[in-house]
Amino acid sequence: MLNYDKRNLTMMMDLYELTMANGYFQGENTDKYVVFDVFYRKNPDGGGYAIFAGLEQIIEYIENMHFDDEDISYLESLNLFDKKFLEYLKQYRFSGNIYAFEEGTIMYPNEPVITVVAPLIDAQLIETAILAIFNHQSLIATKTNRIVQSAKGRKVSDFGARRAHNMDAAIYGARAAYIGGASGTATVLAGQKFNIPVGGTMAHSWVMYYKDEYKAFMEYAKTYPDESVFLVDTYDVLHSGIPNAIKVAKEYLEPKGKRLKGIRLDSGDLAYLSKEARKILDSNGMEDCNIIVSNSLDEYTISSILNQGGEIDSFGVGERLITAKSDPVFGGVYKIAAVEENSKFEPRIKISETVEKITNPGWKQVYRVYNSDGHAIADLITESDEKPDLKNKYRYVDPEKPWKNRYFENCTIKKLQKPVILDGKKVYENKSLSDIQSYVRKQLSEEIWTEEQRFENPHKHYINMSPEYYEMKMNLLNESRGE
Amino acid sequence: MLNYDKRNLTMMMDLYELTMANGYFQGENTDKYVVFDVFYRKNPDGGGYAIFAGLEQIIEYIENMHFDDEDISYLESLNLFDKKFLEYLKQYRFSGNIYAFEEGTIMYPNEPVITVVAPLIDAQLIETAILAIFNHQSLIATKTNRIVQSAKGRKVSDFGARRAHNMDAAIYGARAAYIGGASGTATVLAGQKFNIPVGGTMAHSWVMYYKDEYKAFMEYAKTYPDESVFLVDTYDVLHSGIPNAIKVAKEYLEPKGKRLKGIRLDSGDLAYLSKEARKILDSNGMEDCNIIVSNSLDEYTISSILNQGGEIDSFGVGERLITAKSDPVFGGVYKIAAVEENSKFEPRIKISETVEKITNPGWKQVYRVYNSDGHAIADLITESDEKPDLKNKYRYVDPEKPWKNRYFENCTIKKLQKPVILDGKKVYENKSLSDIQSYVRKQLSEEIWTEEQRFENPHKHYINMSPEYYEMKMNLLNESRGE
Repeated sequence: MLNYDKRNLTMMMDLYELTMANGYFQGENTDKYVVFDVFYRKNPDGGGYAIFAGLEQIIEYIENMHFDDEDISYLESLNLFDKKFLEYLKQYRFSGNIYAFEEGTIMYPNEPVITVVAPLIDAQLIETAILAIFNHQSLIATKTNRIVQSAKGRKVSDFGARRAHNMDAAIYGARAAYIGGASGTATVLAGQKFNIPVGGTMAHSWVMYYKDEYKAFMEYAKTYPDESVFLVDTYDVLHSGIPNAIKVAKEYLEPKGKRLKGIRLDSGDLAYLSKEARKILDSNGMEDCNIIVSNSLDEYTISSILNQGGEIDSFGVGERLITAKSDPVFGGVYKIAAVEENSKFEPRIKISETVEKITNPGWKQVYRVYNSDGHAIADLITESDEKPDLKNKYRYVDPEKPWKNRYFENCTIKKLQKPVILDGKKVYENKSLSDIQSYVRKQLSEEIWTEEQRFENPHKHYINMSPEYYEMKMNLLNESRGE
Repeated sequence: MLNYDKRNLTMMMDLYELTMANGYFQGENTDKYVVFDVFYRKNPDGGGYAIFAGLEQIIEYIENMHFDDEDISYLESLNLFDKKFLEYLKQYRFSGNIYAFEEGTIMYPNEPVITVVAPLIDAQLIETAILAIFNHQSLIATKTNRIVQSAKGRKVSDFGARRAHNMDAAIYGARAAYIGGASGTATVLAGQKFNIPVGGTMAHSWVMYYKDEYKAFMEYAKTYPDESVFLVDTYDVLHSGIPNAIKVAKEYLEPKGKRLKGIRLDSGDLAYLSKEARKILDSNGMEDCNIIVSNSLDEYTISSILNQGGEIDSFGVGERLITAKSDPVFGGVYKIAAVEENSKFEPRIKISETVEKITNPGWKQVYRVYNSDGHAIADLITESDEKPDLKNKYRYVDPEKPWKNRYFENCTIKKLQKPVILDGKKVYENKSLSDIQSYVRKQLSEEIWTEEQRFENPHKHYINMSPEYYEMKMNLLNESRGE
């Protein structure tokens, strides 16, 4: 086992989580339960959905939270905190409840993907870490899924570690990429930690070390006769790289009954070079030699290369996947939705100068609604204690057109949030990463409309509300207008 | 001490580093020394320079490299590696030499910022981690410096943890941001680990928890009478937030001889709202109350807000700093430059389908050349054993105009690379982060032309070559043309 837990990340939080907690502590508000929601407001890259990833690490962080002596001394040195509060932190363990979508669930803007129902201080302290993990892994899973879709069935591997935003971004980025549909990663530690298939070819340094490209390929073939993929662009793809690759295949591999597994192109016009490479390889009886390409790829360049007839078997995708270059911020937020008053949860709403920043108040549930052929036709937000009965015709409110009468008929529903931590104890069973990947694939092939999956102007998933929930929200807005 | 070293990151490398190393091991090439350079090809955001950051963590990684038993078992399970090679890895420690620019040095494209002179396998295995650290920290230091420049002397704080690409990106991103000129961070663990000033205000949840904004501010003022900064945009900035802030200042703080330290705006039109806020505060005798703004800021939005006369004292910058949103990939590469042959280093060059990808061969030195008033007028690349004498008129070659005769006169030079690891032993003394920050500031105020610092079409720093070095490179290019 790797030692994730030997690095104490508890203090990976914004200072204001602690100053607010100290303030709540002074006001003796520690026992009051509150409800916070994690949600996001906009799909990356103008897409129709995002993929929820990072749940396992969020649980791991919360389970392992504890302030060491050196943490307490450091906080003391800031002269901001009451001594009693620091004593309290010494014995602090998270004691609340966390409910979350299953990892890998297709998610949409403005629905609560994770809900925290916990004592005020507990709920406040976990904000920063939850968001950092949720935002990063969901970002990379979603981006990778777009790239995988653009590759139309060809393999996509994560080659991004060197351009990742440091170690965790490489390691957990590889995890998220696999959830999003990558077939593997080059990052060894991620392969080891999460049981992701690892792969790779050779670097230019291999060829340049031997100087003679033919000798370089030959040495590689001798070491890896079954796994040889030659990087053919160090000097000249068509006049040196491919001829030398073929020579080594014919002189060394084929006489031993082996085949050259592939060649890799890492520069130049990949559409043109791959077509030329294919022709040359085929005319030498090497139809089974794969063509792998890399070099600043993403869903846009891959679509373009394939539209030009690029002859490519697999893509190594680095920097634009691991940084989600075209849209590198996943804007997940953590907002208070309700506060316990007289043993019930009183909803809270955030009005804002910016309309999109108005929140959905209260402790809620989210249901996914399926039609009779199994397509997810909408999500439905209800109050947490509602039991929507879809056996009969069910009236709902579309908050964008609330004046219309709308009904679900012949539909089934699934509650999306499940408890993962109850009273501070993990009740979640870790899933294998390949199961999470399969779950993503299954949703996209069986449940989610293809209209939501296209890149250009995708259909916007409906996020509807139960009449009770909608009325509660409107009342709250009206109240606040009155103030 | 925090336990960075208790998380074994040795295997944070691309698989091909290990497969190549295994191949080199088979070929009995383990003892041969090679030279690898770390350099980058393009300044982010079209800027005129970048800032080198991450050196301390690179050294830390290399010093701590070791393969644990579980690492070896995992590698064995891949069925790619020779048993003897795995035995070799068990006792592997880095034994080579690393030369690097001082951390915080202003750097330019295509010059070797770090040079590794090490046994072949040692040099290959460290590639991925060096690049991930170099690319991430240099990216964020450079981006932050642009944001700080746009703020024209106002404070810029890193508020980015929640949108960082996971934990390391938040922690080391805060470190890099401070190097680039941020005045502090909100990320507590980064403050603790690197002695960065930490700060923060309050979240919307504080206001929403108390529901009544006046009560929320009052409770905060009671807890932090000397440190109160109120977030005024939860309901309505001008009609609720600021009036309530003033009320609490007048009713509670001022009678105690305290002053309201600041207000924070996090949504809406920040230029307009800050000007209105300034007027209202001033007309209430609160000229010393700071206005802090946040919400998707970067150098472009900050410039625009200030151009509109925004009345702002300090900026909290989050997602666009911590992800370097406008250009989130720092393209540092690691290329072989020379191979030991008969006890001397024979240069290697990479020709490529893409002209910019042709490398600078050989073991080199980089000097910064200063004119008599202390400005850095160029960098000079020489062979590693040259001793350029600038006491006299010195002829150099501008590789973009090699036909011209060019001279340095009355100039001084400084060698930019210094040894940081020799024969596997660290010879680098860690510097305080504030010293590194000061070093950046000093270079930009005293040495680097302002023409290189502007955002639009900055002057391109000259990277010149000694006549000997230029001739060697041309000979190698000609040779390869002959092949």
